[in-house]
Amino acid sequence: MIVFYSLTSATPNIRKISMMLNETGLPYRVNDIHGQGSEKFTDDFMAISPNGTVPAILDEENGAVLFESGAILHYLAEKSGSLLPANIKDRSEVMKWLMFEVSNMGPTMGEIFHYMVQTSEEIGDIHMQRYKDKVAQFCAILDRQLNDREYLCGEYSIADIALYPWHVVLEDLAEVNLSDYPNLNDWANRISKRPAAAAKFP
Amino acid sequence: MIVFYSLTSATPNIRKISMMLNETGLPYRVNDIHGQGSEKFTDDFMAISPNGTVPAILDEENGAVLFESGAILHYLAEKSGSLLPANIKDRSEVMKWLMFEVSNMGPTMGEIFHYMVQTSEEIGDIHMQRYKDKVAQFCAILDRQLNDREYLCGEYSIADIALYPWHVVLEDLAEVNLSDYPNLNDWANRISKRPAAAAKFP
Repeated sequence: MIVFYSLTSATPNIRKISMMLNETGLPYRVNDIHGQGSEKFTDDFMAISPNGTVPAILDEENGAVLFESGAILHYLAEKSGSLLPANIKDRSEVMKWLMFEVSNMGPTMGEIFHYMVQTSEEIGDIHMQRYKDKVAQFCAILDRQLNDREYLCGEYSIADIALYPWHVVLEDLAEVNLSDYPNLNDWANRISKRPAAAAKFP
Repeated sequence: MIVFYSLTSATPNIRKISMMLNETGLPYRVNDIHGQGSEKFTDDFMAISPNGTVPAILDEENGAVLFESGAILHYLAEKSGSLLPANIKDRSEVMKWLMFEVSNMGPTMGEIFHYMVQTSEEIGDIHMQRYKDKVAQFCAILDRQLNDREYLCGEYSIADIALYPWHVVLEDLAEVNLSDYPNLNDWANRISKRPAAAAKFP
């Protein structure tokens, strides 16, 4: 059984893991750290996730303990033998777009979220606009990649799962004009119809 | 042969790949995109690296094309069969600390670098201090992880290679007081003595 350390309000990073667990059918149970009040930062939880972040998982079968949504997606793909190609070249394509999310879309959207939602500190329009311009550039790159593909690497993969939950909040948080990216919208629409993506969280 | 798209001035992201190529002994040649002047943004280069970033690689043996230093490290580890454990649980540990770098240390140091070196725009002390505090927290997490380990996951791995090049610039860029993190310093000292890390770039 996978123990899925989570929150009842699904952040994009949590939603990735929820989608992946539903997609693979691996058995899991949710450990809602909010339900434990201040225990979020107990030694027990910090031993699992030293940066104090969710999602995190414990695999009771072998004792593997993971934080970082990208690492969790990769592990669940390997464990289930799905959503990550067996061929090294095809697998490298998926890892490339997964890393693109982990190092670019994720952190930049995280900065926007911090300054729009988490703090009353003003960062200044010029800096906020820089983040929004970056996100628009990422969308343009993804839109081109999806020009002749149903999913980012052809077949549905953990790269799609990593990027999809951001699409849902692009317009509200980053003021992305979604109609500028028709391939990206078609892709998101395809994913939204998968039962694992549409399933009620968690 | 691996074609390594690079710059003569080694950024931390470039240095990761240089260290990895030297460590694995895979044959490669450097394609210095600065040497090509404006060709950095030719269609040819952007087809390889659509975000316009280095490092990037082309594996002439199978046509694999990669950008994102984390994806390149993972690919070269798989291709060479080194610095990434074969056992799924041990491998997940390495992927976790690799992702920690890709999503945390890398992007945060990138922001600091941008505002200290790349632009004359002032971001404001409170925001810069937030980035520096984050980096200090990452150092504390790494220092604890290294408390009873020679390398981050026991054996030397791509997680160490991903994080080491940042150590070199922590003090100058992020005003990290390195003496606060003795395990981290011992670790960096051990890595600096490896021939592949000490080798002249590229």
